[in-house]
Amino acid sequence: MAKVLILMGSDSDFDVMKKAAKVLSDMEVSFEIDVCSAHRTPDRAKKYAEQAQEKGIEVIIAAAGMAAHLAGFIAAHTTLPVIGVPIASGALNGFDALLSTVQMPPGVPVATVGINGAENAAYLACEILSLKYPEMKDKLKQKRMEMYSKVLEKADKIKREIKNQAK
Amino acid sequence: MAKVLILMGSDSDFDVMKKAAKVLSDMEVSFEIDVCSAHRTPDRAKKYAEQAQEKGIEVIIAAAGMAAHLAGFIAAHTTLPVIGVPIASGALNGFDALLSTVQMPPGVPVATVGINGAENAAYLACEILSLKYPEMKDKLKQKRMEMYSKVLEKADKIKREIKNQAK
Amino acid sequence: MAKVLILMGSDSDFDVMKKAAKVLSDMEVSFEIDVCSAHRTPDRAKKYAEQAQEKGIEVIIAAAGMAAHLAGFIAAHTTLPVIGVPIASGALNGFDALLSTVQMPPGVPVATVGINGAENAAYLACEILSLKYPEMKDKLKQKRMEMYSKVLEKADKIKREIKNQAK
Amino acid sequence: MAKVLILMGSDSDFDVMKKAAKVLSDMEVSFEIDVCSAHRTPDRAKKYAEQAQEKGIEVIIAAAGMAAHLAGFIAAHTTLPVIGVPIASGALNGFDALLSTVQMPPGVPVATVGINGAENAAYLACEILSLKYPEMKDKLKQKRMEMYSKVLEKADKIKREIKNQAK
Amino acid sequence: MAKVLILMGSDSDFDVMKKAAKVLSDMEVSFEIDVCSAHRTPDRAKKYAEQAQEKGIEVIIAAAGMAAHLAGFIAAHTTLPVIGVPIASGALNGFDALLSTVQMPPGVPVATVGINGAENAAYLACEILSLKYPEMKDKLKQKRMEMYSKVLEKADKIKREIKNQAK
Amino acid sequence: MAKVLILMGSDSDFDVMKKAAKVLSDMEVSFEIDVCSAHRTPDRAKKYAEQAQEKGIEVIIAAAGMAAHLAGFIAAHTTLPVIGVPIASGALNGFDALLSTVQMPPGVPVATVGINGAENAAYLACEILSLKYPEMKDKLKQKRMEMYSKVLEKADKIKREIKNQAK
Amino acid sequence: MAKVLILMGSDSDFDVMKKAAKVLSDMEVSFEIDVCSAHRTPDRAKKYAEQAQEKGIEVIIAAAGMAAHLAGFIAAHTTLPVIGVPIASGALNGFDALLSTVQMPPGVPVATVGINGAENAAYLACEILSLKYPEMKDKLKQKRMEMYSKVLEKADKIKREIKNQAK
Amino acid sequence: MAKVLILMGSDSDFDVMKKAAKVLSDMEVSFEIDVCSAHRTPDRAKKYAEQAQEKGIEVIIAAAGMAAHLAGFIAAHTTLPVIGVPIASGALNGFDALLSTVQMPPGVPVATVGINGAENAAYLACEILSLKYPEMKDKLKQKRMEMYSKVLEKADKIKREIKNQAK
Repeated sequence: MAKVLILMGSDSDFDVMKKAAKVLSDMEVSFEIDVCSAHRTPDRAKKYAEQAQEKGIEVIIAAAGMAAHLAGFIAAHTTLPVIGVPIASGALNGFDALLSTVQMPPGVPVATVGINGAENAAYLACEILSLKYPEMKDKLKQKRMEMYSKVLEKADKIKREIKNQAK
Repeated sequence: MAKVLILMGSDSDFDVMKKAAKVLSDMEVSFEIDVCSAHRTPDRAKKYAEQAQEKGIEVIIAAAGMAAHLAGFIAAHTTLPVIGVPIASGALNGFDALLSTVQMPPGVPVATVGINGAENAAYLACEILSLKYPEMKDKLKQKRMEMYSKVLEKADKIKREIKNQAK
Repeated sequence: MAKVLILMGSDSDFDVMKKAAKVLSDMEVSFEIDVCSAHRTPDRAKKYAEQAQEKGIEVIIAAAGMAAHLAGFIAAHTTLPVIGVPIASGALNGFDALLSTVQMPPGVPVATVGINGAENAAYLACEILSLKYPEMKDKLKQKRMEMYSKVLEKADKIKREIKNQAK
Repeated sequence: MAKVLILMGSDSDFDVMKKAAKVLSDMEVSFEIDVCSAHRTPDRAKKYAEQAQEKGIEVIIAAAGMAAHLAGFIAAHTTLPVIGVPIASGALNGFDALLSTVQMPPGVPVATVGINGAENAAYLACEILSLKYPEMKDKLKQKRMEMYSKVLEKADKIKREIKNQAK
Repeated sequence: MAKVLILMGSDSDFDVMKKAAKVLSDMEVSFEIDVCSAHRTPDRAKKYAEQAQEKGIEVIIAAAGMAAHLAGFIAAHTTLPVIGVPIASGALNGFDALLSTVQMPPGVPVATVGINGAENAAYLACEILSLKYPEMKDKLKQKRMEMYSKVLEKADKIKREIKNQAK
Repeated sequence: MAKVLILMGSDSDFDVMKKAAKVLSDMEVSFEIDVCSAHRTPDRAKKYAEQAQEKGIEVIIAAAGMAAHLAGFIAAHTTLPVIGVPIASGALNGFDALLSTVQMPPGVPVATVGINGAENAAYLACEILSLKYPEMKDKLKQKRMEMYSKVLEKADKIKREIKNQAK
Repeated sequence: MAKVLILMGSDSDFDVMKKAAKVLSDMEVSFEIDVCSAHRTPDRAKKYAEQAQEKGIEVIIAAAGMAAHLAGFIAAHTTLPVIGVPIASGALNGFDALLSTVQMPPGVPVATVGINGAENAAYLACEILSLKYPEMKDKLKQKRMEMYSKVLEKADKIKREIKNQAK
Repeated sequence: MAKVLILMGSDSDFDVMKKAAKVLSDMEVSFEIDVCSAHRTPDRAKKYAEQAQEKGIEVIIAAAGMAAHLAGFIAAHTTLPVIGVPIASGALNGFDALLSTVQMPPGVPVATVGINGAENAAYLACEILSLKYPEMKDKLKQKRMEMYSKVLEKADKIKREIKNQAK
């Protein structure tokens, strides 16, 4: 049974959003993923939002580009936490999607991450789930330590590169 | 029976949108006006959009600020022409509303006018109605001639002011 | 006899605007298309705008890039509904064209669609025509159902892709 | 014992953030509030972030203006969900704060709400808490219904106002 | 007989443009001033542009706000140098007017000055006229020297103010 | 003897500015061209500006990217008309250069053309020169007629292309 | 003898820049202050820049609005560190000044602080001076501690205010 | 012993920042370079900032993209001069990084250079060091003269190219 629902406004968003799926898999979080447009399939988007809670979904991630209404649309039909991912597409490269996602009116929040921030949407979902599932806390801390180590590795690589150039 | 439906995402939009009501009254176009939020009353917005055509509505004007989804939401539920009015509110002063209203995905257009462009939304509705109601064409031409005259009057006033200063 | 007139400020806009022609052909709407610059051929643009109505044109689509004046110029010379398409070109990638097209003064509206929104301009034209030609309403609803189906198909493709990866 | 921690980068942010405190009080969520700058009191901000979890804090709201680093700073020192509120201040009126808050690198998410979105930060905190505290779900649904009713009331007021003008 | 023609898209632009009139008077340049909208009185604007040269006009200054087409419209109908003044008005405060004025297509230039740059439009007109009227060169140099002196005066005032505070 | 002086802030601007040289050659206007940075060779830029008039230069074109000060720098040292060309370079693609060039303080105007608007800078120079050299007026009108014809040719090509597709 | 030179492009910048003077006085750094425009008094600006070092100046602060060239102009004429302060003025409220100040070409840096960041310009000057004058290091640390205490005081005030409201 | 410390938020910033390393090598300034993220390795960043002074570091250069907090983070933990380099990365191409770096609150300055301005960061570091190390002044002046010569060379190349074309 899925805990996280990932919705995308267009199938072209999948190139970005597969990174969210990857993180959730790594974190062993069950999830469901679908394409569902606020403008082209509004009834389906509404049904998804309204039925999410009873289906056991606990966090929804919604990604869309341009006049990105999907996350706000979903948030209007549920009180589950909704994470919005503005997708870079079209002439304004996601700047329109960012404003369309984040500037929600009082009462209907969308937890917005950066443009194309698929990975952060997944990590944020995990942080939210960790309130209820304490074992997630350890996984998140583990992940942070891995990130820490990766930065060090990369730093070492660059320092070696510089030293070699100096020789 | 109303031909034009004006929806606003918030009652605070009425200060701007009353200018649209004024133009429609001047042009003798029957209209209905209501507050209806895509985020706070989505079911009501959906019902409005879906029932508009059978109620005899022929054009819908939808005004909203910030992450302005109302016009797009309505457009997703009807094939009537939907005119979007981005409202200047909040820290970004309507710039967010403009992008959220105009940057719609292919297949679900919103006819967007300028920020706070309530009068133009009403004139555009009249132009659209004139396809079916030829008498509207004359009224629109009449209005353009009045606009022409008003510009001349104001020009005269300024030219007199300058002449007086020169004396 | 053409019902829709498509004007472009430059022949380089045709790559984008051929999508509008495609949609109108699909919807069986007769149209005329031409290149006509507000700045390089103003007299021709004026003549087009002034004669459109008597030639039977019912909606005009005007596309231009940069300081995109064409839609506003046409709107100044007719009371037919004018749809503006801001074209992404030059260093600001259509952001200038969007503002130049949408921010019209009171009395002379331009129904603006998104940057490079050629398809939506055509769909909007069809929605406007549907006021007078009721058979268009069915075509538009049919098109929306096709869009709905296409989203489902693409969603299925992605869900299969994910399942295959999971194996 | 506080479940939500509200941190502000400057005491001048309190005018905005008191709305978050108000919402949390209404929703009967215990909270702690403090001024704590990422730049002027970094050690204190670090301590707050690191000790939050063991003190029983479950969600952190961090608000700051200009080069708004506070939410990201806190997120770097905890795996609790961190909600960022960009505050409108200075010459760019919160636009800088929005980008500084939302555009976080992969691995360290900030759940960003709109500029000055203090109420939405509080509602989002409640939605997150509702995963663990099911009674919160009912309160949130109750709140949504109240919002719904308020929109109807305001709509009625405007419709009466228009009818009276028409008389 | 006027050498410079000042056109404004709206009478509300006069508050800004009277500064251009003031500079031209100071510089003893004869000018004509009028309100003339590219959108509301296009035929009048066209006539102005086409007849300017034979009337003896040598430079045209055109000021407009929002989707500011006036300068480009005039430039399309004459080969006299046209100076464009973007006026700060509406929600975007002249940013739209700047892009609408300056981003002209190849072949039809508009000499654009800063937002609300009425004085600079007038000085630029004088610099252009100085090609043909050499006495203008001396006046311009004289003006620069006055500017120089004024800066010194103001500098002295501030230095005195600081000294007094230090006492 | 050169009538127009073209200065560029960097040799990399030449790719754009050679179009200005091309237009001036076509129009048979003598010109001088040089690379001269306001920041890297300020004394040389100053000398150019101060000696331009006595050398017979009548219009200066100055092109630069990023914090584009060159046109303003030149304008500060001469009362000849200075045309500024903002060059698209660096991360902001000329948007910074546009604002740095056009937003000049009162008294020191720069006649700014669009980003990368090299051709328009040259045409504007010709329009300015036409005040003094009446034969230039005819050349400019001739050029406009050629532009007109080119648009017609391109329009015909597109109309043929569409007809062929329709067959 | 002054160690820091503060130059402003306009006397109207003094309202902002007096805060820089205040900080330098507090930090017991001798300074000289003057109004000196890159566009209206370029020779004076040049002289200031060229003579600064031999007069004993060690850091220059240059503040200007709009197409803010002053800091870059000074930097072009000296190798002393130049701190640029973009001033919020005109329709774009300092956004133009920020880009005009910071986006300098390689080889001629300007150390840019935030819009209206007069205090930070002064603190940065002190930090730079502290390389040579070690006693400055202690003053800066002292100042940071005072900042720290002030934040705590303000935090206490707000916490008391909240407690009182809760009673 | 290093005088300058270069920190980068990500190893991908090295492509840009190696230019800073190159300049410092050319200027014979000893430096240390490392990858160190404000968000992924905050404790390491803090340690770097706090120990820099006692290790003999005199200037710190910090480069980061997107919500670029690194320079501000470092500045919060030291009173050494901190130079911030906004890196162009992600959908907003460094515009977010610029605002996140430069818009610091009063008391904690970051000396910001242009987007990707690695070379200028290094030159600014040298200018700052020149206060204490007078021999650096000569090197800087030498460098300026080289820059001057390079501009002349490039100018000559372009002038020859034009002459050849004219033949």
